[in-house]
Amino acid sequence: MKKTRIENLFLWSHYQPEKQLDFNGFLWVQPSGNLLIDPMPLSEAERGELRELGGVRWVLLTNFDHLRDAVSLCREFGAELWAPEAERERFGIDAEAVNGWYRAGQPSSLPAELGQNLAVHSIRGGKSPVEIALYIEPIRALCFGDVVRSHEVGNLRLLPDPKLTDRVKVIASLRPLASLPIDALLLGDGDCFFYRAQDAFHEFLATLD
Amino acid sequence: MKKTRIENLFLWSHYQPEKQLDFNGFLWVQPSGNLLIDPMPLSEAERGELRELGGVRWVLLTNFDHLRDAVSLCREFGAELWAPEAERERFGIDAEAVNGWYRAGQPSSLPAELGQNLAVHSIRGGKSPVEIALYIEPIRALCFGDVVRSHEVGNLRLLPDPKLTDRVKVIASLRPLASLPIDALLLGDGDCFFYRAQDAFHEFLATLD
Repeated sequence: MKKTRIENLFLWSHYQPEKQLDFNGFLWVQPSGNLLIDPMPLSEAERGELRELGGVRWVLLTNFDHLRDAVSLCREFGAELWAPEAERERFGIDAEAVNGWYRAGQPSSLPAELGQNLAVHSIRGGKSPVEIALYIEPIRALCFGDVVRSHEVGNLRLLPDPKLTDRVKVIASLRPLASLPIDALLLGDGDCFFYRAQDAFHEFLATLD
Repeated sequence: MKKTRIENLFLWSHYQPEKQLDFNGFLWVQPSGNLLIDPMPLSEAERGELRELGGVRWVLLTNFDHLRDAVSLCREFGAELWAPEAERERFGIDAEAVNGWYRAGQPSSLPAELGQNLAVHSIRGGKSPVEIALYIEPIRALCFGDVVRSHEVGNLRLLPDPKLTDRVKVIASLRPLASLPIDALLLGDGDCFFYRAQDAFHEFLATLD
């Protein structure tokens, strides 16, 4: 796993040849238990690193498409799987493996230790009717599963128009996030921003109309 | 290959599990012929992309350790292999495959079309006595093979002290580069900087003593 500018935050990536970008998973190491967000499959070596860093207590998904190997990962590490309530239907039979469903704007719908530290924002009008953007307060990291990404390294982009259900709603959902202090933009798709991330996000918002 | 904020600059990466960072190769697409810098091995799909982008005219190495598959790549694409004169001895028998040797501060030692656009800076005191930093003027991209890197995403770092032969010389070699306009920092090791790269480089220089 890659270390980052934020000491207790790690990421790992799988390059997607058809999309010409990386898909990323994230690990936040913290005393009350480690959190994985939208994990990509892990190699045996990465599983070893994860064990050395204290294993996994929770796996949080921002949407159903990011389920991947999360169920077997949770089984291996004895972790709980949490997913957005708004996505429950899309999980179908996989819903059985989900330990809890969290809701945007309701930290109390998360495990208590996570609810203290995470803010759950809803983005409307993306690929799914409601997409989740997670904000990890102690490390000031804002995480987007799909709707905000980087097709080109160094550029922030919206998901392409044909994939958005309502561009106006997406932009209206993103604007309030401008008030967050941001040290890292964690993107499921494309290279993340760890340097001047807040400036990058504000510049990006300014380009949207 | 990944697209970048700079339209005609591409990069591709191989994750190094022992080092917990990516090694990167770079492609600059331009009318007089495409340039690869320190190429990592390419998959068949990436070779196809490269062909579609116009193939390769030159492969430039910043040092011998980055030779990798460059010889067979040059053969496949009919490209010329260029390496630093200061590294010639280290090439040993592989020197036969090198078409030309270029020298720091002497653009005329490069093929004319490259010499117009590239500045070759020498960094003393690194892993090898003289390491090359390449500056691609039309796209304001500064490329380091080894001595400047990113152990943690978002942080610029010097090669660790035990690997430097003379830290003071390294720093003295880097300081003059502060005057370059920089839109991208291309790092052989670790994630590159494409956003506010010049600020990142100046901040990094300010931390060195």
